[in-house]
Amino acid sequence: MTETQAAAAGTRKRQTAESMAGRQREISISEFFSKNRHLLGFDNPQKALLTAVKEAVDNSLDACEEAGFLPSIRITIRHVEDERFRVSVEDNGPGIVKAQIPKIFGKLLYGSKFHILKQSRGQQGIGISAAGMYGLLTTGKPIVITSRTGAGKPAHYYEIQIDTRKNTPQIITDRIVDWESPHGTRVEIELVGTYKKGRHSVEDYVRQTAIANPHCEIFYTPPDADEPLHLVRGSDLLPPEPREIKPHPYGVELGVLIRMMKETSARQLGAALQKDFSRVSAKVAAEICKAAGLRPSANPRTLQGPETERLYKAINSVKIMSPATNCLSPIGEEQVLAGLRKEIDADFFTAVTRTPAVYRGNPFQVEVGLAYGGRLAGDELVDLLRFANRVPLQYQQSACAITRAVLAIDWRGYGLTQSKGALPTGPLVLFVHMASVWVPFTSESKESVAAYPEILRELRLALQECGRKLAAHIRAHRRAAEEEKKKSYIEKYIPHIGIALREILALSENEEQEVVTTLVDILERSRSRER
Amino acid sequence: MTETQAAAAGTRKRQTAESMAGRQREISISEFFSKNRHLLGFDNPQKALLTAVKEAVDNSLDACEEAGFLPSIRITIRHVEDERFRVSVEDNGPGIVKAQIPKIFGKLLYGSKFHILKQSRGQQGIGISAAGMYGLLTTGKPIVITSRTGAGKPAHYYEIQIDTRKNTPQIITDRIVDWESPHGTRVEIELVGTYKKGRHSVEDYVRQTAIANPHCEIFYTPPDADEPLHLVRGSDLLPPEPREIKPHPYGVELGVLIRMMKETSARQLGAALQKDFSRVSAKVAAEICKAAGLRPSANPRTLQGPETERLYKAINSVKIMSPATNCLSPIGEEQVLAGLRKEIDADFFTAVTRTPAVYRGNPFQVEVGLAYGGRLAGDELVDLLRFANRVPLQYQQSACAITRAVLAIDWRGYGLTQSKGALPTGPLVLFVHMASVWVPFTSESKESVAAYPEILRELRLALQECGRKLAAHIRAHRRAAEEEKKKSYIEKYIPHIGIALREILALSENEEQEVVTTLVDILERSRSRER
Repeated sequence: MTETQAAAAGTRKRQTAESMAGRQREISISEFFSKNRHLLGFDNPQKALLTAVKEAVDNSLDACEEAGFLPSIRITIRHVEDERFRVSVEDNGPGIVKAQIPKIFGKLLYGSKFHILKQSRGQQGIGISAAGMYGLLTTGKPIVITSRTGAGKPAHYYEIQIDTRKNTPQIITDRIVDWESPHGTRVEIELVGTYKKGRHSVEDYVRQTAIANPHCEIFYTPPDADEPLHLVRGSDLLPPEPREIKPHPYGVELGVLIRMMKETSARQLGAALQKDFSRVSAKVAAEICKAAGLRPSANPRTLQGPETERLYKAINSVKIMSPATNCLSPIGEEQVLAGLRKEIDADFFTAVTRTPAVYRGNPFQVEVGLAYGGRLAGDELVDLLRFANRVPLQYQQSACAITRAVLAIDWRGYGLTQSKGALPTGPLVLFVHMASVWVPFTSESKESVAAYPEILRELRLALQECGRKLAAHIRAHRRAAEEEKKKSYIEKYIPHIGIALREILALSENEEQEVVTTLVDILERSRSRER
Repeated sequence: MTETQAAAAGTRKRQTAESMAGRQREISISEFFSKNRHLLGFDNPQKALLTAVKEAVDNSLDACEEAGFLPSIRITIRHVEDERFRVSVEDNGPGIVKAQIPKIFGKLLYGSKFHILKQSRGQQGIGISAAGMYGLLTTGKPIVITSRTGAGKPAHYYEIQIDTRKNTPQIITDRIVDWESPHGTRVEIELVGTYKKGRHSVEDYVRQTAIANPHCEIFYTPPDADEPLHLVRGSDLLPPEPREIKPHPYGVELGVLIRMMKETSARQLGAALQKDFSRVSAKVAAEICKAAGLRPSANPRTLQGPETERLYKAINSVKIMSPATNCLSPIGEEQVLAGLRKEIDADFFTAVTRTPAVYRGNPFQVEVGLAYGGRLAGDELVDLLRFANRVPLQYQQSACAITRAVLAIDWRGYGLTQSKGALPTGPLVLFVHMASVWVPFTSESKESVAAYPEILRELRLALQECGRKLAAHIRAHRRAAEEEKKKSYIEKYIPHIGIALREILALSENEEQEVVTTLVDILERSRSRER
């Protein structure tokens, strides 16, 4: 026993390395997220209700688009009792193969999108099972799924609850049912929630989803309505299907490169580089090998640590074409404008879609739209609508790269007022969308985008471009207004000029009238010329 | 094929439920966090360096305290090349049993603290393996551990790397080495990082750790120093060992209650309630059963859904004593003051430790200390030091409940200046500590505390109490200063009064001097009376 230890030993029951070892154990991911459910967006009842709807709708839209169906989504929220609600989301998508249903809805970290570089709403394989887990935790009720993969196939009905100790699905009910839908999936979750209107509401979310997804039709029935709110399609064109791409060499980290080389199916280093990465031609592969001092015919699976390190440095020293961008599916300037025009009553609209850029090897693309004037309130902070892969982001605005980019711009230069460190003030709705094969969210609840410098830069450029157009509009509008004011003064005094001229020149009343008419006429013509 | 589908099908390669099913797969937790490493505090090289140090120090302090050793920690950061650093953290703790070493350092979600309700720094079983994973990802180097559990035992040396595909440790080296330490653990990680001084620096973190852990001695050697910085112990007393407690019935959720009843080892409901919860006596258990309409002798493992629901409602209708609070180990007012006095050069110090409170069934306790005046800058925002379970929180200040609580107070009432929505301005350092059996962090990187209403309330009350003491100090100080000013005027004019009196009354010089002396004397006495 050391001295310091002896000083303290009298007062406590001591642990030893051995006694501590006896308490070490594995923690399942579902236990972890059940205790930390605020990380997944289930921190309070209002947010929990919204998050459950959002996770189900994300999955529905992804599935419909992948299968080539124009999405039609039915969202229903029913009040059960006290704080309990029953959320139902039904789509006309391709349905889910029977064997996959339990895992998709009853296991965290299970899905098809995590290992793929392609723009989609879901990416983690957590969301919908987490919503089911939250329902189970707060009401003890299982998640209910009905799904059919085609008109000739049976509709499967499942009641599933996650076993949080093991992160595995427990099947409560599994049967075939009658269902009117020829294909699609319906998810029902009973949960403790709070239903509210206004900011952060489900209705807000639904409307913003409609703006960013004009090809989608939504029927939304809130708990206090009998008839659904019908948000009609603004377009019958599905967005182009984004392609899956391989990782770009510039974005790969040393540890990942080591693993890729160990796991490659290619037998030669040169081939592995071409096969497992995007934008590596035979020529580029040869250049990389040369810069690394390695033979292109070397076996990639037996590379030693220092060799892979040389390879890593070589990759970053060779010029490689930017990643392909058909993995992205932006909304497009026209559709952004159509969405804004459909939902917002304003005078001036503009939008810009930037060309794609890259952060950490991941292609991404930024779009900004804005609506100004009209019936928008002029004395309030502008309304900032944030989107990632067409999904509205509703919480954690201040933590988001999009907000940071908006705040970093001096909007006074574009004709708005702005206090230091605040959003600008004016009759303005700002729409900002980031599309990427991998959106770097700041938390699992996917509420805000992490501030990578490349992302901030693209956001800034897009915002500035829209800002300049807005400034031109505001200037022109101001000039026109001032012109108008000047003219109206003249108009007002023309009759007096008439009277004065009559008195000076002793005109008749007819002559006076003629002079007035002529003056008005000249004024009108000069005005229309200027317009 | 439906109409809508036909419209789109021409333009795309369609997925079906079957083709989608083929791509569904499990995602390991280490793959997930490797791709989302910003969630764990490894978003940029500067933060990554700090996070790695912090995770290792958290573990060292926890282990030393649990085993009853006064902690002595050696932190060394060595520059390897370019952006590469080698972090080493060594403690005099109890060491780790050989068989546990690989899992503790090479597997995420493995640990002893997650399933226990007791105040500790670590709680998730992620931190140190994540730091090792980040090192591996950026440099390809394994994490290196040396550990000995006692003087007679061998020192084990391990090189370990995590297999991220499976979340399992791969042992690269496992041997016995000579080591001068009789007991303790040393962790070394090579990683890509950035070393900086100032805000968010390792040195900042080390100094704040010393304030909140006066019983801890730290030797810190930054990359640019030869000799370690030695932060001496401020106290030779270990904090009282916090006890482990059972969950309190009020905090339990329905889903958890269902699971607890299924898994209890008790055979009767009444016994299960007493055994598995804290603060449930035989009397309280009987009351709960009665309110739920259930027999105390019922088998808890066969309760049906509606029965458990009644039990859940009954629990929340019966009066139950607040949870025991010996699971908490606050720093204490004296130690907070000692820590502040040791590290900050100011005029006025005060501190308050609130009595424990409860959120979601978890006991917690808030402490606030402040240092005012002296050499602190008066024209800057106050310096807010945040701590959770004695660990300094360095990032995400704006997202933290502690910051929200400080912002919600009108500090102008306490003699400081404050702009709307901003921290107050003044020569002030604010120290705020939250201790709990389970701190609800807003992300896995444990940088800020979630804003539960109960937590905000306790923070507010503690801040207000310190604020009132500060206000009294500032007022007294101001009154004294004003008094001083008034007196100095009088003092200045007494000789003139003397001269005037001499002239009017024709006094001699001696008489004049006597009058002056008497006046000064009266003034002095009145001054000392007032003080």
